[in-house]
Amino acid sequence: MKKHIVLLPGDGIGKEVIQSAKDVLEAVAAEFDHSFTFETQDIGGCAIDLHGIPLPESTVTACKQADAVLLGAVGGPEWDRLPSHLRPEKGLLGIRKALNLFANLRPVKAFPNLLHASPLKEAVVSGSDLLIVRELIGGLYFGTPSERSVDGQSVVDTLTYTKKEIEQIVDKAFQSAQLRKGHLTSVDKANVLESSKLWRETVEEKQAQYPDVTVEHMLVDAAAMKLVTNPKSFDVIVTENMFGDILSDEASVLTGSLGMLPSASLNQAGVGLYEPVHGSAPDIAGKGIANPLAMILSTALMLRHSFQLEKEARLIETAVQAVLDDGYHTADLQIENGHQVGTEQMTEMIVELI
Amino acid sequence: MKKHIVLLPGDGIGKEVIQSAKDVLEAVAAEFDHSFTFETQDIGGCAIDLHGIPLPESTVTACKQADAVLLGAVGGPEWDRLPSHLRPEKGLLGIRKALNLFANLRPVKAFPNLLHASPLKEAVVSGSDLLIVRELIGGLYFGTPSERSVDGQSVVDTLTYTKKEIEQIVDKAFQSAQLRKGHLTSVDKANVLESSKLWRETVEEKQAQYPDVTVEHMLVDAAAMKLVTNPKSFDVIVTENMFGDILSDEASVLTGSLGMLPSASLNQAGVGLYEPVHGSAPDIAGKGIANPLAMILSTALMLRHSFQLEKEARLIETAVQAVLDDGYHTADLQIENGHQVGTEQMTEMIVELI
Ligand SMILES: CC(C)[C@H](C(=O)O)[C@@H](O)C(=O)O
Ligand SMILES: CC(C)[C@H](C(=O)O)[C@@H](O)C(=O)O
Repeated sequence: MKKHIVLLPGDGIGKEVIQSAKDVLEAVAAEFDHSFTFETQDIGGCAIDLHGIPLPESTVTACKQADAVLLGAVGGPEWDRLPSHLRPEKGLLGIRKALNLFANLRPVKAFPNLLHASPLKEAVVSGSDLLIVRELIGGLYFGTPSERSVDGQSVVDTLTYTKKEIEQIVDKAFQSAQLRKGHLTSVDKANVLESSKLWRETVEEKQAQYPDVTVEHMLVDAAAMKLVTNPKSFDVIVTENMFGDILSDEASVLTGSLGMLPSASLNQAGVGLYEPVHGSAPDIAGKGIANPLAMILSTALMLRHSFQLEKEARLIETAVQAVLDDGYHTADLQIENGHQVGTEQMTEMIVELI
Repeated sequence: MKKHIVLLPGDGIGKEVIQSAKDVLEAVAAEFDHSFTFETQDIGGCAIDLHGIPLPESTVTACKQADAVLLGAVGGPEWDRLPSHLRPEKGLLGIRKALNLFANLRPVKAFPNLLHASPLKEAVVSGSDLLIVRELIGGLYFGTPSERSVDGQSVVDTLTYTKKEIEQIVDKAFQSAQLRKGHLTSVDKANVLESSKLWRETVEEKQAQYPDVTVEHMLVDAAAMKLVTNPKSFDVIVTENMFGDILSDEASVLTGSLGMLPSASLNQAGVGLYEPVHGSAPDIAGKGIANPLAMILSTALMLRHSFQLEKEARLIETAVQAVLDDGYHTADLQIENGHQVGTEQMTEMIVELI
């Protein structure tokens, strides 16, 4: 299989972990006789420094022509005081919109030997294995008007969805549930928002097409509670953009291994952008100690969702589990009687196993 | 002191716990030589049954004339299939708006002998003592347009704030922080929402008036994480309506004692509506086993915030702590070597202590 991949290292530890992703993919290519070509482009703070804007046209063009995109992380204190249209995050929002990445998939799975670092009691969190499917290019993030009144005394943001947009993300969620335990929790605020009522109706209509999936509706406030009290009770959660932002970050800390969580953002054509859930961690950037595993697991999602290379994806996931089982970990994690290693050494161990 | 209090029992266990509140307030009146008069009005499901709507005009009028309002809880499965303008929750939203209750205060405090029921590790949660100040009558909850397009193919909700509305809630939060540990966390999504940028600016302007309060800005997704990983790090959190709904419910489960949490909703005149955070619990309604302590603690908030009766408020809070320390608890809680009691017996014990 021949594939062209755009690498967007971004800022901070993004640069370090993207190198790990490339090393691992080259090992996969050698092992399975694929040909992966790579091209690096700028996004975020480094793009502001080089081009004056967080998302240069050249980056958008390259990503549109690629088979998949890998992103490290964006942002850092250097760029925090810029006017908002020039902030690194705008690059992220821009690329999501430009590539039509309507579906953000965030799996959260408890790694048994990392659970001691969870803020939750082990009995509450162990065995958790959930997937959040977040709508990524609609709602409050992109609705207009989004502006201050001329006199500066009031402000408005707009939450809009079309029925088509809701159908599209709900279909993705049902299909994801079919590949997992067959349970879908649709999260909304239907007792307050009109958009949530349309969301709920659409889920109910779609349900007929997926008789093998059980559906439950949950209010967003109740979901925020239940993620903490009973994370095991979830399989797939589907929700709109802003609720998804909040709930997926809440979910990301449950298992005590934020540095291990990958994500996938997909469009209808199957082109996707894959990135770790963690940020650019400016405080440890350049030290060679960043945890590359979330980035490496993101490449597994890429192989699975964009290239349909399930066997290759599994191999990476198994390698990560094996390295952890052997007690190897980076500085952000602790394993009893384990061995702490740096970014490169961790990457080499994964490459070895492939 | 002479005060007139409207009781809104509402639905489910609301009726039972409101009786406990009244008993406790009568004991306080007797002890301190106050005169509290009471009047009961309908809201929620029971109002739908009796008047055809969740918030009859007579209820609004009575509440407007009262010195304070106590609410049990609204809602239940009987009314779940009604069209949305006739749902019990609309009564709650309506009374908030009618009384101009812009500030919702939700304290969350860890009770040491209930911590074993927390989903969090004891080391993470013990010592937590935070207050969420939620804006309650603006934002997505009340913005217009909030409607479906004529062809039903799209939908819009509107998030609006005036600078005045933001100033008002931010002032309340600063003042609350002054009475506590002097630390304020303002939660927004300023990297995406225009409304959040105005929010952040307003907090920064107000800061000059409260030099004794330290301020920190936090994005809502980061706050959703930190509430789980480090709840102790918060003192006062201030945020807009929808974020406040989600974060305050998330916070309510941290300490393992949802049945213990009171809330206050205040207007500029100091008239307030006080209610437990828990719902109407239809499954246990009428059984005499509901936990009245959140409702009783809500009366303490009423004495403090609407009547400036700090001593009386403290007495109630001390009585609740004493009863728990003696190992008494209702069926929703467990205390090692404790004694389980019903709603009435629990109430009598508090009354005794007063
Ligand atoms: C950086 C920010 C705009 C972004 C979002 O809110 O979508 C981030 O929080 C995320 O979840 O990817
Ligand atoms: C019942 C509902 C409308 C209400 C809200 O969202 O405000 C409730 O969740 C609350 O927090 O009091």
